[in-house]
Amino acid sequence: MSKSPLKIAIAGLGTVGGGTVQLLHDQADLLASRAGRKLTLVGAAALVKPSDLPLDGVPFFTDARVMAKDCDYDVLVELIGGAGGIALDVVKTALERGRSVVTANKAMIAHHGVELARIAEAKGGNMGFEASVGGGIPIIKSLREGLSGNAVGKVMGILNGTCNYILTTMRDSGRDFADVLAEAQALGYAEADPTFDIDGIDTAHKLAILVSLAFAMPIDLEAIACEGIRHVSALDIRYADELGYRIKLLGVASRSEAGVEARVYPAMVPLSFPLAHVSGPFNAIVTEGDFVGRTVLEGRGAGARPTASAVVADLMDLARGRVMPTFGVPVDSLMPLPAASSGAHHSAYYIRLMVKDEPGVFADVAAALRDEKVSMEQIIQRGRAPAETVPVVMTVHETDEASMLRAVARIKALGSVADLQLIRIENL
Amino acid sequence: MSKSPLKIAIAGLGTVGGGTVQLLHDQADLLASRAGRKLTLVGAAALVKPSDLPLDGVPFFTDARVMAKDCDYDVLVELIGGAGGIALDVVKTALERGRSVVTANKAMIAHHGVELARIAEAKGGNMGFEASVGGGIPIIKSLREGLSGNAVGKVMGILNGTCNYILTTMRDSGRDFADVLAEAQALGYAEADPTFDIDGIDTAHKLAILVSLAFAMPIDLEAIACEGIRHVSALDIRYADELGYRIKLLGVASRSEAGVEARVYPAMVPLSFPLAHVSGPFNAIVTEGDFVGRTVLEGRGAGARPTASAVVADLMDLARGRVMPTFGVPVDSLMPLPAASSGAHHSAYYIRLMVKDEPGVFADVAAALRDEKVSMEQIIQRGRAPAETVPVVMTVHETDEASMLRAVARIKALGSVADLQLIRIENL
Repeated sequence: MSKSPLKIAIAGLGTVGGGTVQLLHDQADLLASRAGRKLTLVGAAALVKPSDLPLDGVPFFTDARVMAKDCDYDVLVELIGGAGGIALDVVKTALERGRSVVTANKAMIAHHGVELARIAEAKGGNMGFEASVGGGIPIIKSLREGLSGNAVGKVMGILNGTCNYILTTMRDSGRDFADVLAEAQALGYAEADPTFDIDGIDTAHKLAILVSLAFAMPIDLEAIACEGIRHVSALDIRYADELGYRIKLLGVASRSEAGVEARVYPAMVPLSFPLAHVSGPFNAIVTEGDFVGRTVLEGRGAGARPTASAVVADLMDLARGRVMPTFGVPVDSLMPLPAASSGAHHSAYYIRLMVKDEPGVFADVAAALRDEKVSMEQIIQRGRAPAETVPVVMTVHETDEASMLRAVARIKALGSVADLQLIRIENL
Repeated sequence: MSKSPLKIAIAGLGTVGGGTVQLLHDQADLLASRAGRKLTLVGAAALVKPSDLPLDGVPFFTDARVMAKDCDYDVLVELIGGAGGIALDVVKTALERGRSVVTANKAMIAHHGVELARIAEAKGGNMGFEASVGGGIPIIKSLREGLSGNAVGKVMGILNGTCNYILTTMRDSGRDFADVLAEAQALGYAEADPTFDIDGIDTAHKLAILVSLAFAMPIDLEAIACEGIRHVSALDIRYADELGYRIKLLGVASRSEAGVEARVYPAMVPLSFPLAHVSGPFNAIVTEGDFVGRTVLEGRGAGARPTASAVVADLMDLARGRVMPTFGVPVDSLMPLPAASSGAHHSAYYIRLMVKDEPGVFADVAAALRDEKVSMEQIIQRGRAPAETVPVVMTVHETDEASMLRAVARIKALGSVADLQLIRIENL
């Protein structure tokens, strides 16, 4: 233990910041034994000093910018959040000073990751962001190091615990989206403004980071098409069950000759696939490498303690002197790849129609599919309610997205169809 | 790319060795871009030079010991196998020369890991063994680095692909153990002498390595109680299905106040638990850390390409200059922990009896359980066959192992009980 301590300044003492301070305190001896040196807090910044954290003797700052600029630290831990603002300021300050940064801030990395990595490289600091994707799951390390012998063809996952909790609860309880969302907000599992989570933006941030690591591309958030879960109904979840699927919000990125396709959407996942069984607040990431084949990493996707575990993993790497380029290769080696056309995307689909229960409707729908060369797999209609609106559910075999969307337009134009819901089936 | 190449000598060109040579060849540019330097083969050793591997211009040795001693390499990759013999000789030679070693050899690490780590420490080399557990799954890196902020309470997994393939096929086909084993041997999924796999010894080797990393203990293979899958019948697998379980061969280690308990046994795993869905040749490892909670890592547990992926991950760490103590802490910091008494182990159980179908048998069995304070949960008997032998299946609530074994002895002593099969239920 002759080495000098790793001096840590922490900016942001909310949920994750509090968990990190607690971990550094509770496991101080364990960490020192594993790192061969102490991990020591030399500064903490928040608007108000929390009274319930073990911060005795730690210099406290009400202005994180002042701490970033003046405090003598080896690494600044940024847990303030937000793509820009104070978070970005303190990270830039630290990197410009040649210090290292550890952050859980997926929005900031997704928007400014390459710019920050460039500063880190120029000034000799390092940037860790294990906590930005998948909470406590060591997915960044796995992609960047554990699977580094592979060309990655696909990376996909359940990346947002709030959505997964809502979808799991909808299935378990049979209740509808709005109802479960309201409960999740009351319990603190969803934000007062849930847009980031339920519209898939948070998932897109995380997917953008994974794409960059997996395919050695600069981060390109704009290239990610994004669809959330607001329109997933209890009815769809019930039909999914009956058909042998679970509905999950997925971030999916694949690389082919045509380029890179990266999208966020709710999908029907077959029960034979591990992601179908990832429930509640858990996240999971599937990676397909050309040598390793498929790996699946699962764990808690959020929360004070799991996220602190990931923050400290990055700190331990720094303490052990294990550093590497931010995105696995130097910034100038990150090569943009073309976006694959979404119309060429092949997928099977689930289609739920609300139709007037009258003769001839099936024939019209079937003709619309036939005219676009979309091949029906099965059709379910339960019960009869003449002249009323009833659900009709179909699944279709793999088809290209352009054909599917043209068939959907034809079906929507039928007078007897009141509503149409389209969900991808993720056959793997 | 100004850095000098990482010079690699590879000993053993069988399945994994061949896969590794192929990976280093196929991904040469990718690896160089990620590592910032080339990974170059400077020697290869095998009894006979394979004609189908890209070894043009690579110095070839028919004696791996000669290569280990004379060749100028930075790292020796040992893929010969076996706990001792040539494998151990070449690894010792490399480490004594101050060079690094990468190996897939679980038997050698389980038997000699601490001794080898000590030489590596003394001479300044490093030892990587990612490929020794879980094939391509980056579990060693995750335990040693990604979860290094946690005190680990439990590590368990499906660690042997051959057993998992046999158990999965038995379930899918309804066929019995001997039959499926013979087929697996014919297909090359099981060895001619399958003892290492099916008696749990290979799982014990891997568990011993995980235990050392998880609990920072010296490796202690002797402390692992080991039970294989020979006695698992098609009947038990059918009942498991009916009761909502899958039978899996598990390596399970936990740490408590009482000490460390590490065992290998077939267990009934509830369908709600991720391990139940790990099929065929896949492996998976569950870790419980005090901050991160539960993580699950799944992937291919064997085979040329997945194992080569893990070997190369270790090589990439060395190429990138990312090194650390073999078991996460210096050898002298590995602290033996007492073994917990197995009699105190709490578990639920499945019990299958073959009994004469005559009045009074149930009462006798129930009395034996009651006398040892073992509480029955459910009992299944299908059909009647007076005076013949029929299966009766029971599950019992959590009890300590000592009581369960006393109750089993009482039941076995009943004249009407022809056979008794006891399988743990892994409630998680």
